[in-house]
Amino acid sequence: MKPSLPRGTRDFGPADVQKRNYLFTVLKRHFGLYGFAPIETPAMEQLETLTGKYGDEGDQLIFKILNSRLNESSEKNQVAGAFNEMLEAGKSSKLLTERALRYDLTVPFARFVVMNQHQLVFPFRRYQIQPVWRADKPQKGRYREFWQCDADIIGSESLVNELDLMALMDSAFAELQLPVTIRLNNRKILNGLAAAAGHADQLTDITVAIDKLDKIGVEGVVNELASKGISPKGIDFLTPLLRFQGNQHEKIELLRSLIGKHEVGAKGIEEITYLFENASVKHAELQFDLTLARGLNYYTGTIFEASANAGTLTSSILGGGRYDDLTGIFGLKQMSGVGISFGIDRIYDVMEELNLFPEAASKATATTLMFVHFDVAAQRHCLQLAAVLRAGGIACEVYPDAGKKTNKQFDYANKRQVPYVVTVGSDEMASAVYPLKNMQTGEQQKLTLNGILDALK
Amino acid sequence: MKPSLPRGTRDFGPADVQKRNYLFTVLKRHFGLYGFAPIETPAMEQLETLTGKYGDEGDQLIFKILNSRLNESSEKNQVAGAFNEMLEAGKSSKLLTERALRYDLTVPFARFVVMNQHQLVFPFRRYQIQPVWRADKPQKGRYREFWQCDADIIGSESLVNELDLMALMDSAFAELQLPVTIRLNNRKILNGLAAAAGHADQLTDITVAIDKLDKIGVEGVVNELASKGISPKGIDFLTPLLRFQGNQHEKIELLRSLIGKHEVGAKGIEEITYLFENASVKHAELQFDLTLARGLNYYTGTIFEASANAGTLTSSILGGGRYDDLTGIFGLKQMSGVGISFGIDRIYDVMEELNLFPEAASKATATTLMFVHFDVAAQRHCLQLAAVLRAGGIACEVYPDAGKKTNKQFDYANKRQVPYVVTVGSDEMASAVYPLKNMQTGEQQKLTLNGILDALK
Repeated sequence: MKPSLPRGTRDFGPADVQKRNYLFTVLKRHFGLYGFAPIETPAMEQLETLTGKYGDEGDQLIFKILNSRLNESSEKNQVAGAFNEMLEAGKSSKLLTERALRYDLTVPFARFVVMNQHQLVFPFRRYQIQPVWRADKPQKGRYREFWQCDADIIGSESLVNELDLMALMDSAFAELQLPVTIRLNNRKILNGLAAAAGHADQLTDITVAIDKLDKIGVEGVVNELASKGISPKGIDFLTPLLRFQGNQHEKIELLRSLIGKHEVGAKGIEEITYLFENASVKHAELQFDLTLARGLNYYTGTIFEASANAGTLTSSILGGGRYDDLTGIFGLKQMSGVGISFGIDRIYDVMEELNLFPEAASKATATTLMFVHFDVAAQRHCLQLAAVLRAGGIACEVYPDAGKKTNKQFDYANKRQVPYVVTVGSDEMASAVYPLKNMQTGEQQKLTLNGILDALK
Repeated sequence: MKPSLPRGTRDFGPADVQKRNYLFTVLKRHFGLYGFAPIETPAMEQLETLTGKYGDEGDQLIFKILNSRLNESSEKNQVAGAFNEMLEAGKSSKLLTERALRYDLTVPFARFVVMNQHQLVFPFRRYQIQPVWRADKPQKGRYREFWQCDADIIGSESLVNELDLMALMDSAFAELQLPVTIRLNNRKILNGLAAAAGHADQLTDITVAIDKLDKIGVEGVVNELASKGISPKGIDFLTPLLRFQGNQHEKIELLRSLIGKHEVGAKGIEEITYLFENASVKHAELQFDLTLARGLNYYTGTIFEASANAGTLTSSILGGGRYDDLTGIFGLKQMSGVGISFGIDRIYDVMEELNLFPEAASKATATTLMFVHFDVAAQRHCLQLAAVLRAGGIACEVYPDAGKKTNKQFDYANKRQVPYVVTVGSDEMASAVYPLKNMQTGEQQKLTLNGILDALK
């Protein structure tokens, strides 16, 4: 039997894991600086916790787990009946499956907050870095098992939380040396625009059309708006925005003149103005992007997105925003929250392309020094030396097979890219002075064991 | 809808995650010191990769994933037929399920080695810390999602690998301050004993009976051996071992007199003698335990087990051993390996019971300092102070709601156990001197921002 991996899943070898850990470590340090504490939830959730939360399309992509007591069931007819019903109606039956793999970290977080509401202190800040699973068609950069990395603050309406998240993204991307643009929008502004244009119910149509401005130009957008049934008056109202040229301050002023008297729209303008005025963003480019409309059915205020300013990836590497009723689905009302999600797999790909992983984080071998030896007695001596080095914090190994030719042993160290080798024979055992060889430069130093410890520390 | 968790699964809150991370960090550091590099494999494996590897009982406990294209299938009759067959025969059909959640880390590791055999350099040392899933009946300390933490060396028969693993366990448990006994046995000795007793085919019966010595005494074991069909001659042969009183050296001498001429048995005695003579074990108690027989169908040489010498948990917290044909199931022959598996959940429980987690690793809050403020202007000032502290590596937060009573803000800091609070009003903004309050002692110091940075670093 030739083994294989399920489509859309990956193994991570030593160098991959080290680089991913570098990324996680940097993000975790920045989460910590902003007071976010980690939580973890199980891979499996009750199926009913997940279904109905991601739309019909999302529901189809949830990986469901076959009930384990299925094979033992004494009520086979009943189970078989439920199964046939499932095939007919396209609905899953509790007799077949009651559990599923989590589809994102947001719904499990909402469940966690509701189940632990009496122990948690609100506002509650958490981060969570875990894999999620989706039965999506695998393609380049899209996996069936991938990692999400979310930071949320729940239980506070204050825009200070948005500022914290913006500063957090900025400082994390700065440490990763990844040049980025952070784009900002506000759902309330979009609401105000749609309402003032006389089409409050066509928010999505309007946003989708505006989003194409770069590609199809003003005339193209106008045509699309018309084809979606937006009235000439509504199109006239929106046209100044499409023709707008100017800086962010001027864009906000234009909006104020258009929807400043619309209650919700004005609130949106006030919010985004506050964010631009108080943002502590030093590394990233910050943009007000009126076309930004991710998760429209979900976000109620600020909308965030970030993308890399270098490399070939054009899609976003971070998304997020404010939601007013995340936990309402589980019965806990009036919990406003705001969160961001780092797209780990995409960030990884961009950093790889731009060669941004530090050399120390890219090594497939953990070993600093390997002992090469001539015979069983020398190997035994090496074991004692290794114990001292390890106690001193030096990662080392003794070549496992005794009596093997030293050039074979050197080959092994070379292939594994071990940076230092010490060869031990009867002379070294007698003198307690050992040749420390730098495998990259070929240089060799004769040192005592303490000398080696000092040299490698 | 009141949300719940699937049986046998757990959420980990901030304090749990911090303590688990402490445990993982210590283990990872020690893995690194011995040259083990991390790999990770997907949660899902092809069902055929897993089935047939864990015995019939194990196969029943594998969580299978329902094929996602099931609902769309146009061949409903065929799927329904396969399903009925599955109910009848108790076998899963490819039409229903082709993937499953990994049951352990050993089989995925074997698959990884076989699939990457041309890239890997052997002997290959890897560690792996990931959750596994088993549809076992949940009970105290037994979960359906739990973590395994494995270190293996594959591609070398040398006993130096065993020595490395013993030293690794010893140094890791020493750093965790967990008192342990490491028990050692060798499958070849058990083979030799069974063969010399004239019952080579009843190795399991003999070992299981000997294992009960502590509980049922010599007479009890003799009765059980007889009831299993062991001949009087065989029982006579084994009795000296049952009556044995003495140290490890004497035990080995007794074995030498019993099976020293049996080829495999003698090899086992030689191996265990080598390990006792060369072990670099300083912290743990090391025992030769002839009754140790874990995974008999699996291990072919050394067998390891460790248990805590303090606390109420009597079961083992680590297990492992040498296997000669792990990758043979996937077509790669003659790859001897040896490995250990730390029982993370049990180690966690023992450490919790013995209060061994450092205080710094047990905090539910990541925040060192929180800013309390009187109004919007003071809050804005705090945001600037926070940016400086964060850039200096101090984890801090600004209370998010402006204009809230300061005692409410202090309440929040108290409940979250934030260790330091700085209150800012117009006086502090004018003087740039801030009161740093230690929330545990109540002490307060007036400091500049740099003074706060220095005090908290």
